[in-house]
Amino acid sequence: MKLRVDLLPHGGYADTALVIDVLRATTTAVAYLERGAEGLLLTASPEVALSLKWQEGVHNEAGEPVRNEQYLLGGERGGLPITGFDFGNSPVEASQQNFTGKHIVMNTTNGTGAAHIAAQSATRVLLASLTNAHAAARRAKALAVDEIAIVCAGTDERVGLEDVYAAGVIAEYLLALGEFTVDDGARIALTLRRNMGNPLEALSSSTHGQVLERLGLGEDVRYASQVSESTVVPVLDEVQDIEGALRFVASV
Amino acid sequence: MKLRVDLLPHGGYADTALVIDVLRATTTAVAYLERGAEGLLLTASPEVALSLKWQEGVHNEAGEPVRNEQYLLGGERGGLPITGFDFGNSPVEASQQNFTGKHIVMNTTNGTGAAHIAAQSATRVLLASLTNAHAAARRAKALAVDEIAIVCAGTDERVGLEDVYAAGVIAEYLLALGEFTVDDGARIALTLRRNMGNPLEALSSSTHGQVLERLGLGEDVRYASQVSESTVVPVLDEVQDIEGALRFVASV
Repeated sequence: MKLRVDLLPHGGYADTALVIDVLRATTTAVAYLERGAEGLLLTASPEVALSLKWQEGVHNEAGEPVRNEQYLLGGERGGLPITGFDFGNSPVEASQQNFTGKHIVMNTTNGTGAAHIAAQSATRVLLASLTNAHAAARRAKALAVDEIAIVCAGTDERVGLEDVYAAGVIAEYLLALGEFTVDDGARIALTLRRNMGNPLEALSSSTHGQVLERLGLGEDVRYASQVSESTVVPVLDEVQDIEGALRFVASV
Repeated sequence: MKLRVDLLPHGGYADTALVIDVLRATTTAVAYLERGAEGLLLTASPEVALSLKWQEGVHNEAGEPVRNEQYLLGGERGGLPITGFDFGNSPVEASQQNFTGKHIVMNTTNGTGAAHIAAQSATRVLLASLTNAHAAARRAKALAVDEIAIVCAGTDERVGLEDVYAAGVIAEYLLALGEFTVDDGARIALTLRRNMGNPLEALSSSTHGQVLERLGLGEDVRYASQVSESTVVPVLDEVQDIEGALRFVASV
């Protein structure tokens, strides 16, 4: 089997794709499902997310729009919450709530876009982070026929150390699960994983880790550095019924 | 000073950019200038290169177009020579000729495009390879005010191990020349350079190195693995008078 690591989303995935945005979208996605969410809707834009917030054409007695109770909105731009959203993009915040019966509508700067790029071509799309690294590797190995592509979201179209490091962790698990021919990206990710200290050191020292620290979100970086604590893997659902949004559900 | 390594061309360079396409465009560019070429014209397309081959509107007695004697054309698509060009993109071939008085018109799959992206924003653009790594680092350090950006050309919009490795070699030289704050890309390149064996091992094992080997161009890979053999650094000239082409001249 082939193992391909794209250090930035490229497209052209023929088989199984694992999308990684460690800081923080895919880490948070895993946390939402861990905490009982029925599904995730990764939208192509904040506008699509906001359009799901209210029941279309329905108003209460005071003429105000009525909330769509099944949906909660989570997301960020530049690390900060989006106006009108219920949550930021924080795995720590997500891990402290109960989302039973809810769908979380997510839109973030890089991670949700990477998922949309992957979904254009891949036959299966999973979301991976350090927190579900081992489970994601096992699930991808079980699903893939010919190729596993690990797609690093990066930050604003530039390579993010934290994503490549996490890709290396998952690649290492995959190599333990079977025979793979690896591409240049996989070799770079593996070299990084084997030589760049422990996960917390790698994530804390990354450009984006330092940005989050400065925004007072260092706890999220520490949360995201936990390896294989969760067995939940968000998988692109077969049912896709909302325009501009990708539905992911938990696969354990 | 800031050191930035883009694992793929991104754009938005405010200061000095070093463009790397180790296999093989920038290695060959250095070889052309080593062998006496007056300048290099990196064109935006093969068509621009071919338009420079003949004297515009001039025909001989037999009605045939007349060659522009000052220009020789070198380039490749998918590793193979382009129809109508004089040379492929081989540093070995280039190193065996005498180009005194000639301009080499170059067009290649990735390297010339990366140079054009860099030239859109950078105030100075240099071409770097392993063969001129130390000279390129010193020249960039002498020119840069605030930031040195090393721009890896990659292969067909995917990261190439050989370019990132060479970026690490140059980054290592730069760190010995002064104080730098390094970005994620620079840290990835440095980690690769320090942990991935010698240059020949790195280049030979890269996807593109293996493609060239299969095409019978393994000698070029070995040539490109030589470190700091040349002190010639191609520098974007201040005089740019040909539409769609960037003129580089030797800076020693």
